[in-house]
Amino acid sequence: MNNNKLDLKQTLMQFLTQFEGFLTKDELQLIVDNSTIQLFKKGTYLLKEGEVAKHCYLVLNGCVREYLVKNGEEKSTAFYTEGQPVNSFTSATNKTKANHNLICVEDCILTVGTSSLEEEMCELIPRLRSVIRMEVEKHTGTYQDEMSKFITSSPEERYQDLLENRPDLLNRVPLHQIASFIGITAESLSRIRKRMTDKKD
Amino acid sequence: MNNNKLDLKQTLMQFLTQFEGFLTKDELQLIVDNSTIQLFKKGTYLLKEGEVAKHCYLVLNGCVREYLVKNGEEKSTAFYTEGQPVNSFTSATNKTKANHNLICVEDCILTVGTSSLEEEMCELIPRLRSVIRMEVEKHTGTYQDEMSKFITSSPEERYQDLLENRPDLLNRVPLHQIASFIGITAESLSRIRKRMTDKKD
Repeated sequence: MNNNKLDLKQTLMQFLTQFEGFLTKDELQLIVDNSTIQLFKKGTYLLKEGEVAKHCYLVLNGCVREYLVKNGEEKSTAFYTEGQPVNSFTSATNKTKANHNLICVEDCILTVGTSSLEEEMCELIPRLRSVIRMEVEKHTGTYQDEMSKFITSSPEERYQDLLENRPDLLNRVPLHQIASFIGITAESLSRIRKRMTDKKD
Repeated sequence: MNNNKLDLKQTLMQFLTQFEGFLTKDELQLIVDNSTIQLFKKGTYLLKEGEVAKHCYLVLNGCVREYLVKNGEEKSTAFYTEGQPVNSFTSATNKTKANHNLICVEDCILTVGTSSLEEEMCELIPRLRSVIRMEVEKHTGTYQDEMSKFITSSPEERYQDLLENRPDLLNRVPLHQIASFIGITAESLSRIRKRMTDKKD
């Protein structure tokens, strides 16, 4: 178990090396030492609709699905995999009830953060504030870009985009969840996949 | 002109009063005094695809359209109106070429910000950093929520949502731009509007 813990800390350190230009090695080590890394079994809910989000996560290993229930049906709205942060911004910032669920669709290893832990770390490492600010803005940019891509693309283009940019997802997540994630029914996705296979032949 | 300038500063102050719990009146006044407020004529481009975004804006009056060109067609991806910030996060944060255009679809009065002005203001008012951070997170939350709403709704529901939450937009923006903003053709939007009128009769 000690060995495992060491591995997890090393995985986090590997992720953090992208910030070496902004923070010293000692500062990065301090973050690793103070981080909570937890294993969550497949099927664990990190957040349920109606709860107020208190934690933010970073996926070191595994896959987390964000979904909401509409007219009795589960609709997947995001999948977070290795290296991606998992946040419920509106609920966490405004202390309001979340409108979505977060569930581990695989066994997951996640860092678990809270705003108070973040504040403590920023007190210890003042430069961390601007790093976090930059990361949040990058994240916002990703949402802005994804939103614009989603609005301007057809379901077929969205599926093609997944094939190109997140091919692993298609092996990790059932197709009906992929279908709702690109805004269509499972039947429509089957037709798209068939058309693409026919084209190849 | 002096009177006009005073009015604009007052409009900005009105907007900023929402932060009275976080900043003192003197601090808010300092922000107003140091803000650049500019009038942009209808048709002015704030950003063109391929440029690197250097400014961020806040709409005090008017409407800014975000769009990209795909297969020779303009596709609207956002409309920013009174009280909304206008940012091109990915381009500004990563210093990369913007994938979209920003154009004033009405005469607009905007505050014009830069990262260096923001840094100067944060030096003067250290608490401003956490206010900005909170605002960016709220903004991110809005994107996350809008994305999830867009994915899980039909074009008809998206139109209904605009009618309920942004009714002014429908009088300010041509219908074909509204159509692309909800991910459909102008013809499909006409059919939706006709169906809704028929239902009412």
